[in-house]
Amino acid sequence: MFLNKRKIVLVGTGMVGMSFAYSALNQAVCDELVLVDIDKKRAEGEAMDLNHGVAFASSSMRIYAGDYSDCSDADLVVICAGVSQKPGESRLELLQRNTAVFQSIISPITRSGFSGIFLVATNPVDIMTRVTYELSGFNASRVFGTGTTLDTARLRYLLGDYFSVDPRNMHAYVIGEHGDSEFVPWSQAMLATKSVIDICEQSDGKFCLEEMQKISIEVRDAAQKIIEAKKATYYGIGMSLVRIVRAVLSNENSVLTVSARLRGEYGQKDVYIGVPCIVNRNGVDRVLELTLTEEEQQKFTESCAVLEENYEGLRL
Amino acid sequence: MFLNKRKIVLVGTGMVGMSFAYSALNQAVCDELVLVDIDKKRAEGEAMDLNHGVAFASSSMRIYAGDYSDCSDADLVVICAGVSQKPGESRLELLQRNTAVFQSIISPITRSGFSGIFLVATNPVDIMTRVTYELSGFNASRVFGTGTTLDTARLRYLLGDYFSVDPRNMHAYVIGEHGDSEFVPWSQAMLATKSVIDICEQSDGKFCLEEMQKISIEVRDAAQKIIEAKKATYYGIGMSLVRIVRAVLSNENSVLTVSARLRGEYGQKDVYIGVPCIVNRNGVDRVLELTLTEEEQQKFTESCAVLEENYEGLRL
Amino acid sequence: MFLNKRKIVLVGTGMVGMSFAYSALNQAVCDELVLVDIDKKRAEGEAMDLNHGVAFASSSMRIYAGDYSDCSDADLVVICAGVSQKPGESRLELLQRNTAVFQSIISPITRSGFSGIFLVATNPVDIMTRVTYELSGFNASRVFGTGTTLDTARLRYLLGDYFSVDPRNMHAYVIGEHGDSEFVPWSQAMLATKSVIDICEQSDGKFCLEEMQKISIEVRDAAQKIIEAKKATYYGIGMSLVRIVRAVLSNENSVLTVSARLRGEYGQKDVYIGVPCIVNRNGVDRVLELTLTEEEQQKFTESCAVLEENYEGLRL
Amino acid sequence: MFLNKRKIVLVGTGMVGMSFAYSALNQAVCDELVLVDIDKKRAEGEAMDLNHGVAFASSSMRIYAGDYSDCSDADLVVICAGVSQKPGESRLELLQRNTAVFQSIISPITRSGFSGIFLVATNPVDIMTRVTYELSGFNASRVFGTGTTLDTARLRYLLGDYFSVDPRNMHAYVIGEHGDSEFVPWSQAMLATKSVIDICEQSDGKFCLEEMQKISIEVRDAAQKIIEAKKATYYGIGMSLVRIVRAVLSNENSVLTVSARLRGEYGQKDVYIGVPCIVNRNGVDRVLELTLTEEEQQKFTESCAVLEENYEGLRL
Repeated sequence: MFLNKRKIVLVGTGMVGMSFAYSALNQAVCDELVLVDIDKKRAEGEAMDLNHGVAFASSSMRIYAGDYSDCSDADLVVICAGVSQKPGESRLELLQRNTAVFQSIISPITRSGFSGIFLVATNPVDIMTRVTYELSGFNASRVFGTGTTLDTARLRYLLGDYFSVDPRNMHAYVIGEHGDSEFVPWSQAMLATKSVIDICEQSDGKFCLEEMQKISIEVRDAAQKIIEAKKATYYGIGMSLVRIVRAVLSNENSVLTVSARLRGEYGQKDVYIGVPCIVNRNGVDRVLELTLTEEEQQKFTESCAVLEENYEGLRL
Repeated sequence: MFLNKRKIVLVGTGMVGMSFAYSALNQAVCDELVLVDIDKKRAEGEAMDLNHGVAFASSSMRIYAGDYSDCSDADLVVICAGVSQKPGESRLELLQRNTAVFQSIISPITRSGFSGIFLVATNPVDIMTRVTYELSGFNASRVFGTGTTLDTARLRYLLGDYFSVDPRNMHAYVIGEHGDSEFVPWSQAMLATKSVIDICEQSDGKFCLEEMQKISIEVRDAAQKIIEAKKATYYGIGMSLVRIVRAVLSNENSVLTVSARLRGEYGQKDVYIGVPCIVNRNGVDRVLELTLTEEEQQKFTESCAVLEENYEGLRL
Repeated sequence: MFLNKRKIVLVGTGMVGMSFAYSALNQAVCDELVLVDIDKKRAEGEAMDLNHGVAFASSSMRIYAGDYSDCSDADLVVICAGVSQKPGESRLELLQRNTAVFQSIISPITRSGFSGIFLVATNPVDIMTRVTYELSGFNASRVFGTGTTLDTARLRYLLGDYFSVDPRNMHAYVIGEHGDSEFVPWSQAMLATKSVIDICEQSDGKFCLEEMQKISIEVRDAAQKIIEAKKATYYGIGMSLVRIVRAVLSNENSVLTVSARLRGEYGQKDVYIGVPCIVNRNGVDRVLELTLTEEEQQKFTESCAVLEENYEGLRL
Repeated sequence: MFLNKRKIVLVGTGMVGMSFAYSALNQAVCDELVLVDIDKKRAEGEAMDLNHGVAFASSSMRIYAGDYSDCSDADLVVICAGVSQKPGESRLELLQRNTAVFQSIISPITRSGFSGIFLVATNPVDIMTRVTYELSGFNASRVFGTGTTLDTARLRYLLGDYFSVDPRNMHAYVIGEHGDSEFVPWSQAMLATKSVIDICEQSDGKFCLEEMQKISIEVRDAAQKIIEAKKATYYGIGMSLVRIVRAVLSNENSVLTVSARLRGEYGQKDVYIGVPCIVNRNGVDRVLELTLTEEEQQKFTESCAVLEENYEGLRL
């Protein structure tokens, strides 16, 4: 006896990070949660505010503001830190500045003796996860990003609605860059074990690919719409992070479309991109290689190219 | 067959309201949640962001932006709306402006045919709850505020820590105005069924009233400290609201220190103030009248006086 | 306001019925649970024993011994009643005696004004569900049995183990008679959206159909093995019933292999048999027709024939 | 990384043991559960039956039939083993036979290197817990029994009903022998922080001590009534065991009336008896000494005497 604690360090206490933290508290997903931010006073205030909720939580979580040395015995470091785009700043300039932020983060974490898993949520998530991988020198299985996890969950939810079926019985994925080049390989979309394409064909027009395509576009553009309405998006991604964290801490072997490093799968190498992966206590245990149609493979290759291009200009 | 939905309308989608909404989603406390805000576009953006989390929630909640007509069949209306203090504005001027806001809210809600329960979180919560009572014309049992619910939960949590006992076995209350005049009647504080005062006396200095007093001051001043660090406080109160909502929807008959209207209890009438109440599907089923010491009763009377004074200057 | 209660009447308080009841209490799946048994005193004792656990349950369930009149406003009637095989008794004689038991049950239930859903667990479940359908005169969608729900869940669990994948990402079914002629249509078995047959072929011998076949035989013979060891099987089926009940009460639209009446699907009519169905508050909302191979369809037809033969000898 | 498993060994797979096991599975209270019984085949059958439910549980528990060597790394050993009274057998003869059973159990467990906590449910529970303490040579804090945990929970539940208050706000205890000499010290019974005696006096006859006394008698005689109706009682005690196990594994510091060894508290030494204790990962962290009235202390002393007398005739 007795139990090791399940310990998470959150780096970055902006709205995304705090929405993760608040959801983690409400769902009691870990035993210890450390908040780290450049603005230490802010992190302390957030810890205090969360601590006031602990009295109403189903289990007693230890929450406090800390620093990178707290990573030494953590199971997971969740990175939500990052700077925002300045007016007139190019995408690459922004990326370069965020890379500088990550350099100041990753190095002290690895120096702490941290030997757990990096989970990255900072956008553009595929690039920033790759940056984390390069800076940390960790095994690729232990560094991954949120990828298209939220997009996939949302897709299933809307398809469940469309077909009047429990979303848990809709099997479909959004894959590729978490961004404009992401897409749904419909050949891999099923209701139970029936292809939705077949269902559409047999449904006498009740269901059709065009409507499903609209759903996938709605999923792709959702973040943008939310940003127009409330300037930022954080609640959905917060719960998405909790879902991934649970797959790791409970060693679930769950299939999730996280941003993982490809090592030959889908004919690609080195790039970090959203693909179905088996996630467990080892992080990304393995990448699941779907049997894509030629057209789908083409889209995937293009999405990889977009990410490669974005990454290549960066100086690490 | 079948189940009526448990429906809540949230008025005010600022950080307090949204922290309640997000916690409600994470804890699956109701079946339908309507977001109402003067800024309709904002409410729509918030509903979209929450909806993205539904795919990860344990049950499927319906969440959407609506208007006051949605209150007609709601079980609860939770009010978190309000304006902030302007530089140089007096407390009374602020109160007067918030009263104007409530006038614009309560009237369309009652006109909708709403026959549920008003739960108020807007500060100063005791005054704003009384304003809601007066404006709505509802029975007092169906109008109450968060009062000192959060303060009490926090007190128990810290006392549990102090005595190394499960907070659920610490029985103590913060009562009075949710503000500077609130206090802990220590004669009513128990570990299981033992008075903490007796425990202190018998503990050979291991435990003492002075330390407990520090805890109660820490509880009273917590909000202020959080505000200094992060400008606002919302997570703790969000979970506090979920706790109260559950007591109502599950008809729990729980003892909670909500802000309720006194009708002779503690020698007071008409004032709304934080006292232990039995909360169930009828709202505040009854006020629990503790046997206070003379000194405690004196403090309570003074706290009532503070609230009366603040209320009296208001024009409804 | 307010909530209707979710009410279930359990008929038959033997070990299967009580294991369902105890699991329902532990998982808080409904608000009211009525126990009905010919042996009223037994039902009262069971209600008392369960009631002692209520103090430790997460929500307050009302549990009591009742009679058929309690079905009038129930959402579900779960039937676990039945007699056991006498030495030397033929299968048909047993069936005939159980039919007599059901005649004494169904008639007073329908007379009570019951308009909910019949869920049958008594074995042989496919026959007894059909008997219930015929005796009740209810719409077929509102009468169904546990079918191969437990077998399917167990299959997924073991396949998850075999492939080191979360069982929730294994999609496969045991279909047909809940008995010796049940089988797994492997053409419909998938890991995420990949056919397990393809995975076997591409795995260089790591995975193979022979091993999976062994798993399906283990699933089919499991009940027999448990009966050899402990004379009866009840815990697994108890939790299986709770799973189905939740799909109904929460209107989940879940795909479950319950015993449902075919109306042309798979080329069959009238027979009750285990097939994937969409289950929601209406009961079996619709049967999902899988695209079976010729060999699988042949097996299914044979399984239907077994059931037809068993049913035909019965006098209702 | 990573998590140690929370491991429990259950000794005795009769109805009490299995009701605990089934509840533990339904509530997902541990990660690994080993079933040990003299009848190994029975234990294997029970493990198989439970395993079939795992597919429907909220988390994946490992359940298997084992032997005493499995205790070496267990957190808790729960003992439900025991023989039943033979016709004409005296209470002492039965106790002596159960002691022989425990001798065959405790010794191989301690030899396995077990260093966790013994939790005993076998009746008469106070005596059998003391026997376990003596045979194991363990520190008294690590050996305790279910005591009056179930009686106390039931008392609160019924008092909650009587006063229309959430049972979590009723604070009262059944203390003493788990048997005929147990009693409720009413001076220690409170609704929130108000003495129920005061409430009765102030209630104008609405509430009275006579009615509460009836409730305590109902609690005391409940087991006997259930036994009359269904020959045995096991569901309530099964959930009671899960409650205690959770207090240990989650290090809750909860106040529970378990059977603990007194070391001077209440003027008693050496006897094991049901009293309020702080239960955490160390077992019985400390005994809470209530301030009893003279009459209550007298009853408690008599209850201790009953237990001493029963114990003294035993040969260990």
